Amino acid sequence: GLAAPALAQAMPEIRWRCASSFPKSLDTIFGAGEHVAKRVLALTDGKFQIRVFGAGELVPALEVANAVTGGTVDCGHTASYYFVGKDPTFTFDATWPFGFNFRQINAWLEHGGGRQILREFFEPMNIVSMPAGNTGAQMGGWFRREIRTPEDLRGLKFRVGGFAGNVLAKLGVVPQQIAGGDIYPALERGTIDAAEWVGPYDDEKLGFNRVAPYYYYPGWWEGGLNLSFYSNKQRYDALPTLYKEALESACRDATIETMAKYDAVNPPALRRLVGAGAQLRPFPRPVMEACYHAANELYAETSAANPLFKRIYDHTKAFREATLPWFRVAENTFDSFNYLMQSQEQQRRG
Amino acid sequence: GLAAPALAQAMPEIRWRCASSFPKSLDTIFGAGEHVAKRVLALTDGKFQIRVFGAGELVPALEVANAVTGGTVDCGHTASYYFVGKDPTFTFDATWPFGFNFRQINAWLEHGGGRQILREFFEPMNIVSMPAGNTGAQMGGWFRREIRTPEDLRGLKFRVGGFAGNVLAKLGVVPQQIAGGDIYPALERGTIDAAEWVGPYDDEKLGFNRVAPYYYYPGWWEGGLNLSFYSNKQRYDALPTLYKEALESACRDATIETMAKYDAVNPPALRRLVGAGAQLRPFPRPVMEACYHAANELYAETSAANPLFKRIYDHTKAFREATLPWFRVAENTFDSFNYLMQSQEQQRRG
Repeated sequence: GLAAPALAQAMPEIRWRCASSFPKSLDTIFGAGEHVAKRVLALTDGKFQIRVFGAGELVPALEVANAVTGGTVDCGHTASYYFVGKDPTFTFDATWPFGFNFRQINAWLEHGGGRQILREFFEPMNIVSMPAGNTGAQMGGWFRREIRTPEDLRGLKFRVGGFAGNVLAKLGVVPQQIAGGDIYPALERGTIDAAEWVGPYDDEKLGFNRVAPYYYYPGWWEGGLNLSFYSNKQRYDALPTLYKEALESACRDATIETMAKYDAVNPPALRRLVGAGAQLRPFPRPVMEACYHAANELYAETSAANPLFKRIYDHTKAFREATLPWFRVAENTFDSFNYLMQSQEQQRRG
Repeated sequence: GLAAPALAQAMPEIRWRCASSFPKSLDTIFGAGEHVAKRVLALTDGKFQIRVFGAGELVPALEVANAVTGGTVDCGHTASYYFVGKDPTFTFDATWPFGFNFRQINAWLEHGGGRQILREFFEPMNIVSMPAGNTGAQMGGWFRREIRTPEDLRGLKFRVGGFAGNVLAKLGVVPQQIAGGDIYPALERGTIDAAEWVGPYDDEKLGFNRVAPYYYYPGWWEGGLNLSFYSNKQRYDALPTLYKEALESACRDATIETMAKYDAVNPPALRRLVGAGAQLRPFPRPVMEACYHAANELYAETSAANPLFKRIYDHTKAFREATLPWFRVAENTFDSFNYLMQSQEQQRRG
């Protein structure tokens, strides 16, 4: 084994500052970054300390990528689609309209070549990005008025995350990119007509149900939002190997942890919201189909203009086409039968 | 920080022997145990070495729990339902008929109180059990003849994992508990009429399609099989804190890793199997319903006889009833719409 002095040298004290894109009030999504920090601490005997700051404390929520690139902060915890304005390719590190669910994006990232291909994208930006948390399929958001047809989207000022805004713009939506903590006041004042965030538990905390009654699903633009832990590449490269391994494990740990937490806290939150008067509505099929076709148009246009976007999009598309038929077999029939039995039992109980 | 001698003491060399219940030929499920070992090694700078032995190398596949309890081995990697013959309560550390899917069991274990309640069960057996891998929803297995009605199950000698055997026995099945590596010869010789293992990728390796043409789904008894890493409690308690943390993270890592791997390798394997002539069949609704009712009967009977089983079953049931309605909303409508669009596109392409 290593001699003692070598070991001491191998475990220096390191302190990093982490800029989160999420408000501290959200123990789920902000908590994912804190979970990374907690596990890194445990895995390095307290030597590698990451302090996570809430959105806006060090840099604005939507400036996290720039801050990590430039080294203003050592690291960040974010949703990569916040930066599609810089380059739409960011979306593939997060989620995209009619893309993957939680299982599918993890399979693509970890065993479908996703992380390798994204490394090429992040390298010139001086960022090392690791998957670190996931929300699962999200809700479609809170609307002041009902959406019955695709025409009802026209002129709608809608706070919506990432690349989905570009899709919805094709249908006449005026998309707004607003950080989590700033959405409620905009919706309350009527600056926007509708807003989506994540799902029942977070949305309830942010209070959207108090100012917009219609709660639509699904969030077809976020079938399984992968959260990302960004490290500044020079700082990352300077870490001892053990700390790099600790960070990798901590991030994977955050993915299981965050998904499990969302899946435990969302069901009772949805029940509470509906009990308090939220009007739960599926997007009508014609609305879903119009959005689906608009998304495919946008993918084609963006691919024509951006070769790396095209390469990664085609890569995800091939994986998705090969993968969906399997998910329809055992996974979907197991779930569907359980839903059916539960409905029948509820009907019998009246 | 710690002085160098304290650190050297804090990172002693430790070697453990791990008995897997799975054959080495299965890089997915046996690989989950190896992944734990690999991550532990990386997280302890090579100091904590776990060597994973294939089923039967140290102890028989179905003797892993006893071996860990008695300290014959330091640790094991297994599916807890192999031991339902000792106590049916083991099933809640693995999967059970019409139970949870992958997301739901993780939510219950990590944020629904599952791991706490299971600790009480394992403690008297001298076992520390950690979730370490998952298969997702499994297939229903390979049958020599078609299953058209519940009556077709009568007299069927079926290799089936865990508690599901007791359910199927109510419908006249003669269940067989046979370790993975021994199934093929039994099916080939006609000692059994049908066999289920996991899903397309593993099943193809084990060669079942060569001797039984009908491939049924879903495996309603395994909606998301949680694999377990068992540590002998005295050996676990003697580990330095850092190594305990490394083991915990490595096991969680194995859950993401194994699920991602299955989800990447199963789709092409299913395509190959169908291409080679496998007859894919859903279990008919009346068969599913008969099994569902038989399962509920068995839960009631077992609960009446076994207070801890009852306590844990009721706990899972309450969590399931509260959770399913949420999964039907965003998650299920997102997936279903994507399946529908894919079907329409395939039809258009002809």
